[in-house]
Amino acid sequence: MKQILLLGAGRSSVYLIDYLIEQAPSLNWRITIADLQTHHLQKQVEQFPFVLLVDFNIHIQEQLTVQVGQADLIISLLPAAFHLVVAQTCLDLGKHFLTASYVSPEIKALHEAAQQKGLLFLMEAGLDPGMDHMSALAAIAKIKHKGGELLAFKSYTGGLVAPESDTNPWHYKISWNPRNVVLAGQGTARFLQNKAPKYIPYPQLFRRTEKIEIIGLGELEGYANRDSLSYREAYGLESIATLIRGTLRWPGFCAAWRQLIQLGLTDDSYTLLHSGGRTYAQWLESYLPASSENLPLLTRLANYLNLPENSAEMEALQFLGLLENELINLENVTPAQILEQRLIQKLPLQPTDKDLVVMQHEFKYKLGNENRRLKSALVVIGQNATYTAMAKTVGLPLGMAARFILQNKNFLTGVHIPTHPEIYEPILAELKKLGILFTEQEELL
Amino acid sequence: MKQILLLGAGRSSVYLIDYLIEQAPSLNWRITIADLQTHHLQKQVEQFPFVLLVDFNIHIQEQLTVQVGQADLIISLLPAAFHLVVAQTCLDLGKHFLTASYVSPEIKALHEAAQQKGLLFLMEAGLDPGMDHMSALAAIAKIKHKGGELLAFKSYTGGLVAPESDTNPWHYKISWNPRNVVLAGQGTARFLQNKAPKYIPYPQLFRRTEKIEIIGLGELEGYANRDSLSYREAYGLESIATLIRGTLRWPGFCAAWRQLIQLGLTDDSYTLLHSGGRTYAQWLESYLPASSENLPLLTRLANYLNLPENSAEMEALQFLGLLENELINLENVTPAQILEQRLIQKLPLQPTDKDLVVMQHEFKYKLGNENRRLKSALVVIGQNATYTAMAKTVGLPLGMAARFILQNKNFLTGVHIPTHPEIYEPILAELKKLGILFTEQEELL
Repeated sequence: MKQILLLGAGRSSVYLIDYLIEQAPSLNWRITIADLQTHHLQKQVEQFPFVLLVDFNIHIQEQLTVQVGQADLIISLLPAAFHLVVAQTCLDLGKHFLTASYVSPEIKALHEAAQQKGLLFLMEAGLDPGMDHMSALAAIAKIKHKGGELLAFKSYTGGLVAPESDTNPWHYKISWNPRNVVLAGQGTARFLQNKAPKYIPYPQLFRRTEKIEIIGLGELEGYANRDSLSYREAYGLESIATLIRGTLRWPGFCAAWRQLIQLGLTDDSYTLLHSGGRTYAQWLESYLPASSENLPLLTRLANYLNLPENSAEMEALQFLGLLENELINLENVTPAQILEQRLIQKLPLQPTDKDLVVMQHEFKYKLGNENRRLKSALVVIGQNATYTAMAKTVGLPLGMAARFILQNKNFLTGVHIPTHPEIYEPILAELKKLGILFTEQEELL
Repeated sequence: MKQILLLGAGRSSVYLIDYLIEQAPSLNWRITIADLQTHHLQKQVEQFPFVLLVDFNIHIQEQLTVQVGQADLIISLLPAAFHLVVAQTCLDLGKHFLTASYVSPEIKALHEAAQQKGLLFLMEAGLDPGMDHMSALAAIAKIKHKGGELLAFKSYTGGLVAPESDTNPWHYKISWNPRNVVLAGQGTARFLQNKAPKYIPYPQLFRRTEKIEIIGLGELEGYANRDSLSYREAYGLESIATLIRGTLRWPGFCAAWRQLIQLGLTDDSYTLLHSGGRTYAQWLESYLPASSENLPLLTRLANYLNLPENSAEMEALQFLGLLENELINLENVTPAQILEQRLIQKLPLQPTDKDLVVMQHEFKYKLGNENRRLKSALVVIGQNATYTAMAKTVGLPLGMAARFILQNKNFLTGVHIPTHPEIYEPILAELKKLGILFTEQEELL
């Protein structure tokens, strides 16, 4: 009998829980799901006697120690900030640990200690980061195996809304952590283009988008992600000339989002004065120059942003309710926190809405005397606002990783991300069986 | 006999040293000047037997302890990062402490301990911060004394180049710490306008300037400083409707500087890849989109910034040598550090150049049924690149504060900034004697 502890039962846990429940009887697993509250899961799990729901508080180390102590393997879908304390507890008690979050320097530092105890701490094993590593490395291995020399690698991923559920001027609905949507792109994006480093500062990022033609889906827009340069080493691409990782959005989103950045509304570095008792319109007003003319807010905003009043960008800003005389009702918050509240209120997935996950890699490589382009694309459409493509593509790789760790004795140990064939090959094969697979398109250049 | 220890003998120390030397014989002072190197001061002080030069290393606590132990009062012109260790040593050994730097929360925390030992730690006692507090509080006290009700307070300061030495398209030369010039304005500026908070994010800051007419000097441009809101309490202006503090530049500087910000060249948050072996032109290129057209860098830069090639902004960027094929020769540096090197190389004060210090307060207040405006302006022109207006206005208030502390027994104790009449009144009176005085202009509105 093996015991799996799942920490965190939020919106991306639903497919993972179903997968674990499906596997449990034949593999003789018991599953504990622990979160602050778990009652919303009672219906989903009540007919399965091998599943236990536990209401627990991650801030109480004793509770964490008890739960981790009873398990063989821990999967955490908690916010990334909690992973270090969980990893440390797993290390102390000798348990494997899986997450879909970026590996932090603090967790990386546990590598040798985990190795000595024969443990695998597998980070970045969801969608992005996660399936991006797995599918890219699989394609790179294939190209290298047939003697190809990689010249360029561009990889774009997006958590979007499916076209049939796209009902707003942002062409976007929230299918994952809205705080990350607000903070996306802050800092300076870095990538490699024709052997030269390129830098895009945040205020220009959503202006300098690239059109990306996705196999079977059409044209989306991509903006560069934070630090693509660091992937040269992780992917074994030290001598590649072009390397860009980015995020996909439906056309229109980036031009409108850029206005929020220009205004300063995505800033998370300072707390606003008396935000609670003020309205969204007053808040917006505080970012505009004082005006002696008695023009409406809409006109002054459009003038300040150099946009026609009836432009798509202005329509998007209005749709978010930023010009409304409605109380903000949040005290001691940053601009980013107010904007996050507005995204949650105005851009939710409705119960029957379908979300969309898109990931596409584009490789250019030289084979003999030929220059070739390989595109490899994943397109997953969700079922509804609960069974989302996002929950599916984040959760299933984690569940599958758990299965392969518990089924194999001589596994990789230490702190890793899924860039090793012994990790990604079985997971990609298993995903393929469930219809989560990449479509390839190759052409001579 | 009283012993004064001056820590730091850099470019802003020259007037302070002269002032201390002048006062020393009649007040029976001995003066120790300590810095990493002091040989450049030998000529200035060799005829004065009561002055001792000491080469010392602030990182060696023993040396600091010995020097502080022998003194009655310590003035520090060291970089602000060193003030906490000096303050702590002054506290341990029971010595007064003076600086021209902003009071940090860590130093503020020493307030009660300093009080218990009967010590004064006077921070922010130079120009800005320093004379700005003193002169503003003196004017505010005068207005309140005659029964005026303050409606608005705008205060702008600039360390500039005198018109007769203005020989470049920036209309600027370096008269103080160039690193602070590069980083100026990062974050979000906050102020109060007509009772409403206003926020200007960094990318907009140098676009949203205000024209400021300085008494006897003409029109300058001002941009808002980081957090004006915090001065409501410090200045006793809790119910004022408008409160802005800002920085002055000659017209043209802000429009050109804004281009550096748009490009991302003032960023200090990440280290560049292989900067040492690359040229300034290659560095600039890394902030521009890739281009399939074979246009010169100048043209592509102008197109990207939406500027005519022969605009004043483009001329300024070229003057800084950002388009030159010259090696950067700095490894592991941030964009801000490269830009700082270019400012030092391209915008130095030449030996006979004169700098300029400008400070102007503008108050609006109600007196009876009248609305009145009071302007109060300080304009100081330097002698040359050594005896600068900046060194004069930073150094003299510190020297005078030292004199009044050493001459008086029952002084204020604890950690303070010069917002108390018992500190600022004697200093402003003494500055006036040396011709450093504010010109006032008052009118009915």
